[in-house]
Amino acid sequence: MIEVLRNPAEMRSRAGALRAAGKRISFVPTMGYLHAGHVSLMEAARDLGDARVLSIFVNPTQFGPKEDLSRYPRDLDGDLHKAEGAGITLAFVPEAAAIYPDGYQTFVEVSDLSQGMCGASRPGHFSGVATIVLKLFHLVQPHVALFGEKDFQQLAVLKRMARDLDLDVEVRGLPIVRESDGLAMSSRNAYLSAEQRQDALILSRAIFGSRDRFVKGERSAEALLALAREILMSNKNIRLDYLELRDAESLKTVDGNVGRPTVLAVAAFVGSTRLIDNVVLPA
Amino acid sequence: MIEVLRNPAEMRSRAGALRAAGKRISFVPTMGYLHAGHVSLMEAARDLGDARVLSIFVNPTQFGPKEDLSRYPRDLDGDLHKAEGAGITLAFVPEAAAIYPDGYQTFVEVSDLSQGMCGASRPGHFSGVATIVLKLFHLVQPHVALFGEKDFQQLAVLKRMARDLDLDVEVRGLPIVRESDGLAMSSRNAYLSAEQRQDALILSRAIFGSRDRFVKGERSAEALLALAREILMSNKNIRLDYLELRDAESLKTVDGNVGRPTVLAVAAFVGSTRLIDNVVLPA
Repeated sequence: MIEVLRNPAEMRSRAGALRAAGKRISFVPTMGYLHAGHVSLMEAARDLGDARVLSIFVNPTQFGPKEDLSRYPRDLDGDLHKAEGAGITLAFVPEAAAIYPDGYQTFVEVSDLSQGMCGASRPGHFSGVATIVLKLFHLVQPHVALFGEKDFQQLAVLKRMARDLDLDVEVRGLPIVRESDGLAMSSRNAYLSAEQRQDALILSRAIFGSRDRFVKGERSAEALLALAREILMSNKNIRLDYLELRDAESLKTVDGNVGRPTVLAVAAFVGSTRLIDNVVLPA
Repeated sequence: MIEVLRNPAEMRSRAGALRAAGKRISFVPTMGYLHAGHVSLMEAARDLGDARVLSIFVNPTQFGPKEDLSRYPRDLDGDLHKAEGAGITLAFVPEAAAIYPDGYQTFVEVSDLSQGMCGASRPGHFSGVATIVLKLFHLVQPHVALFGEKDFQQLAVLKRMARDLDLDVEVRGLPIVRESDGLAMSSRNAYLSAEQRQDALILSRAIFGSRDRFVKGERSAEALLALAREILMSNKNIRLDYLELRDAESLKTVDGNVGRPTVLAVAAFVGSTRLIDNVVLPA
């Protein structure tokens, strides 16, 4: 039976005991409402740790004042059921007041990688993400932590943070899991009406259309972006937030020709729901 | 014989091995040029750890562009000799390029406690301090870390950071060590000429003059500050940076009467040398 811990101090002391006993700890930090993407992370964690920890915490500091914190979907019972099936041994489910007590005032910034893309449309988002993940690393003390590549910029920020702060944690990304029609798995897909669900397909169609052109030999950043943009714009129910080609490692904007591994990343609103997706062009 | 490690990865793996073997690690982070204040920290560390680690690192990110980074005094051989005498078992002496490699971009901010006092005259200083100490904590993995109370605001910032980031480290402050004439020990005292050395005594005289008035019953913040200021101003070779009464825990400015433990803190220039000192009024 999966064990549930709610108290941060208890989580930390449990992790310390596991470490002292020579156990390897693998870790999947989430905001809950688990989907097949999370399941792939938990199944990877099963092969990587003696103790497999899942955290479920809808982190308020990574939401902007006008974002969807209050309506973010939750289903703890369903999540624990999925977690147990995927081999998680311990679920850490803290309250916000225990994570950010009165007087809380410490934040981490990963400067360059947090600029642009989601960092431009969500000010403070990556500082909130980096801070909560650092705190969770201190509490869970994992050897390896798993994140989905859908949040591509987040993964780059967290890898950089782990390296810069000398953390003894391997931050590992796993491929995006998609519905059979191509839609990237996201807890936020739950917000979509049946009609919006169809509209949302344009995101993956746009970036894969461009990826196919790349595979056939197109290397011009301008041409690849233009094609994806044209596909996106063909659906009038979509409001584009950004569409960018960035170096897959440094996240620097790619001009001219694509000559190194490059991520084609998109963010767009379907109704009031903001969705993101990306594909790596393996130059 | 004291062991010296220069490589951060080696330090971290050594600390991990000590932890795995059940050893307690005590830690004294310094910028070197050790004086009797540091010796008191190292001697305390001797009683608190099986492994006693000293770090010596003149941290560039806590110096402003016009500050004394390039001329900060150094004496590695002398430091190691003192450290060995005080029971240190391992000295960590990294190069700046190993601590801040190319592309480094992650910083920690402890917001409220870094405002005012030294934070006002040294923008970015406490972010630099918090960041290097967090990195050193990840590398050295101490159970307890010791800091002098002379850097009173620094100690408050680091205690708050450790708590906010869920670090499993006790951050402990030890009393200021003074020369027989009252001057607070500081590596920067090495900058002072014989004459400036005499001028510098006015800092401790001012705050202790005010402290004596407090002990005799004076509780008015205004009166206590006025007295200290009057003493400071009596020496024309001193340029005052700040003189403040702050709550010893929250570091909030104290107006009206002193009714809780309160720190009377001063910073002043003697020539181009900036010195700080403080005393706690034990209300």
